[in-house]
Amino acid sequence: MLALNTATLGHNLDGYGAGWSPERVIDACAERGLAGIVFWRREIGSRAFAIGNRVRAAGMEVVGLCRTPFLVGPLVPPTREARMDDFRAAVDMAAALGAPVLTLVTGGIEPGTKGPHESQKRLAERVAEGADYAARHEVNLALEPLNPLYGGNRTCLMTVRDALRVCDMVDAPNVGIAVDVYHVWWDTTLAESCAAARGRILGFHLCDWLADTRDMLLDRGMMGDGVADLRAIRAAVKGAGYSGTCEVEIFSAGNWWRRDPDEVLDTMIDRFRTVC
Amino acid sequence: MLALNTATLGHNLDGYGAGWSPERVIDACAERGLAGIVFWRREIGSRAFAIGNRVRAAGMEVVGLCRTPFLVGPLVPPTREARMDDFRAAVDMAAALGAPVLTLVTGGIEPGTKGPHESQKRLAERVAEGADYAARHEVNLALEPLNPLYGGNRTCLMTVRDALRVCDMVDAPNVGIAVDVYHVWWDTTLAESCAAARGRILGFHLCDWLADTRDMLLDRGMMGDGVADLRAIRAAVKGAGYSGTCEVEIFSAGNWWRRDPDEVLDTMIDRFRTVC
Repeated sequence: MLALNTATLGHNLDGYGAGWSPERVIDACAERGLAGIVFWRREIGSRAFAIGNRVRAAGMEVVGLCRTPFLVGPLVPPTREARMDDFRAAVDMAAALGAPVLTLVTGGIEPGTKGPHESQKRLAERVAEGADYAARHEVNLALEPLNPLYGGNRTCLMTVRDALRVCDMVDAPNVGIAVDVYHVWWDTTLAESCAAARGRILGFHLCDWLADTRDMLLDRGMMGDGVADLRAIRAAVKGAGYSGTCEVEIFSAGNWWRRDPDEVLDTMIDRFRTVC
Repeated sequence: MLALNTATLGHNLDGYGAGWSPERVIDACAERGLAGIVFWRREIGSRAFAIGNRVRAAGMEVVGLCRTPFLVGPLVPPTREARMDDFRAAVDMAAALGAPVLTLVTGGIEPGTKGPHESQKRLAERVAEGADYAARHEVNLALEPLNPLYGGNRTCLMTVRDALRVCDMVDAPNVGIAVDVYHVWWDTTLAESCAAARGRILGFHLCDWLADTRDMLLDRGMMGDGVADLRAIRAAVKGAGYSGTCEVEIFSAGNWWRRDPDEVLDTMIDRFRTVC
């Protein structure tokens, strides 16, 4: 089952993605028989109920919402109150959309500390602070480990193993893990880590790692164009009991975001069938 | 014991490092009581014997030489013969310099394959092809795992654990591992991996990971300016039996390479004393 993460259509920078509205994205996905869509908060505004209902009326599911504020690190909201307000706003929007999963990108290394360990402890405390609120709204939180290249300011979880350790610290039934090819493709212990995460994988994100990656943020590849072993990673995730959608999420300012969204959708469907 | 990797003075790009010759670098390191120097091949030319002797005459050691050609991946020399010729030339230069360690940066994912596993197997075969030649010249080969951000075209070893697995496959007494803070700082299993590598760590490289890293190649930080837990990493390496020098290797086109080399050397010595 295939889902679109709207980032793939360049939603989040002006001048990309041909300016498609959420409604147009929904129609284009439904026409192609996709199973669902993952949105970003900036696209939704105050229309969460309407957009969620439109997705379901078109025969699809809202698979998830991106994302919480950073909870630790140098880019965290300036006060505890601001952080919790924004966290609750993200949960509220997920609930209004009918999205069962809210992605949690953690933020980086806490100022004044060194290495990932202390930040992971603080992260666990802060996820625990918000997990009950999310549970009351029937929203699951998916902690997403990011490629170590983001270890400075965007994440303190660099592997599925790291994310699993924080899940264990939080120990809440609605807190799990998102596995993204871009972030984990290089990890030769991934199959074991996914097995250890059995029952706690809440999302699976597809793209590819381009051998000659040129930008630290916006140069992800279409499935098949890079060096990730997509079949092996998908098998590891499925083997750990994950039965949800495969969600295509490609940040690509230099290539896919410049193309016609219809072409991007057709290509990702074709590649999903042939190389994943 | 502190050593300089000459990359720290911007040796390898025109217009950086104030154009210091190897001799001037040797004198500046000796004046400051450093234990040794690691050179890059491009600096040595045909003067390996003279430069090695000058280092020793100044009371220091040539700690190592950077580096072999890539042995796998898209940037490998075009033929087996060209690869082996360049590999042997690197060994010959290390031997002529009196450098006991030659750093081996592996190259990335083999074209036509996916994921790191197959490339690691081929790497092991190719290291084995060259290990005897290096042994006959009393040169040890240090396999250096690189940060996963280089996993496309520059490395197929993303962790100390990966490097150790390839060492096990090669199973030659002169093949070990280099541990570089920039590449491993994020790894929460590093202490275990280093313990498993006991007796096989041949080099330890210092710098720092800047929280707001802006360039994929040339934005490394001076020790203390980033988020790596330098003391913990050094302790893990020492705990695994490593008793060699701590080698400062900072690629920094935007900052340190633009400064007076005397200032860079003084700063790295001060930071080594205070934050490592």
